[in-house]
Amino acid sequence: MTETAAVLFANDAFYIAFRSRDLEAMDDLWAREAPVACIHPGWHALSGREDVMDSWQGILTNPNSPEINCHKARAYLVGDGGFVICYETMGDTVLVATNIFVRESGTWKLAHHQAGPCDLQPAALKDDSEPAALQ
Amino acid sequence: MTETAAVLFANDAFYIAFRSRDLEAMDDLWAREAPVACIHPGWHALSGREDVMDSWQGILTNPNSPEINCHKARAYLVGDGGFVICYETMGDTVLVATNIFVRESGTWKLAHHQAGPCDLQPAALKDDSEPAALQ
Repeated sequence: MTETAAVLFANDAFYIAFRSRDLEAMDDLWAREAPVACIHPGWHALSGREDVMDSWQGILTNPNSPEINCHKARAYLVGDGGFVICYETMGDTVLVATNIFVRESGTWKLAHHQAGPCDLQPAALKDDSEPAALQ
Repeated sequence: MTETAAVLFANDAFYIAFRSRDLEAMDDLWAREAPVACIHPGWHALSGREDVMDSWQGILTNPNSPEINCHKARAYLVGDGGFVICYETMGDTVLVATNIFVRESGTWKLAHHQAGPCDLQPAALKDDSEPAALQ
């Protein structure tokens, strides 16, 4: 597997854990050696593994959390790390996210996630074969 | 200078270029070897140096662009790279940003910037001596 495929695989695993509300898998996906942070949509920044995982516990155990799907993920390998930019849909809401990954013991782990609003409509994300129009 | 100080210095330089509308400095701050991307508030993702710099040209030459200030920047060193999380104020608007940096020829350069809305008020950012309350 290429490093690009590996980091996209880790990104997919993040959204599968998110969508299936699998807190154990989510915990396993985040880095344990690197410092971690997270910016949920409209929130301030959370810093440190304990606060980040507390936030995921709240989100994944909330029965009103909408189903999330990931679209048009694109990986950027930078030095010995990497980040992924992708779109998230929750019903008719489209968000754009940055997910930063770091390798720990040969596995890509999340170091940071930020999601926020964007100007795309869900219809723009239907064709997952190509990245979204990136002007 | 420690690496943490160096990456925060590069982050400061980014906001000085932004605030002073210095397109030449902004161009110099972005990586030339690493792939770059940018997500302006409410936009979709821009990918590649040409599109990213075109967006900065539009923003920095727009006479209606509000003055931007950076607050409570915190650096996270991850592998041989790093990222900075900070808050941006433009008048009464507060945004939260992730800036990813990579070292090129010994200098920290921007590989990615995402800014989006957050739940903090400007008053929460007045004391720059400590990071914002990060729950």
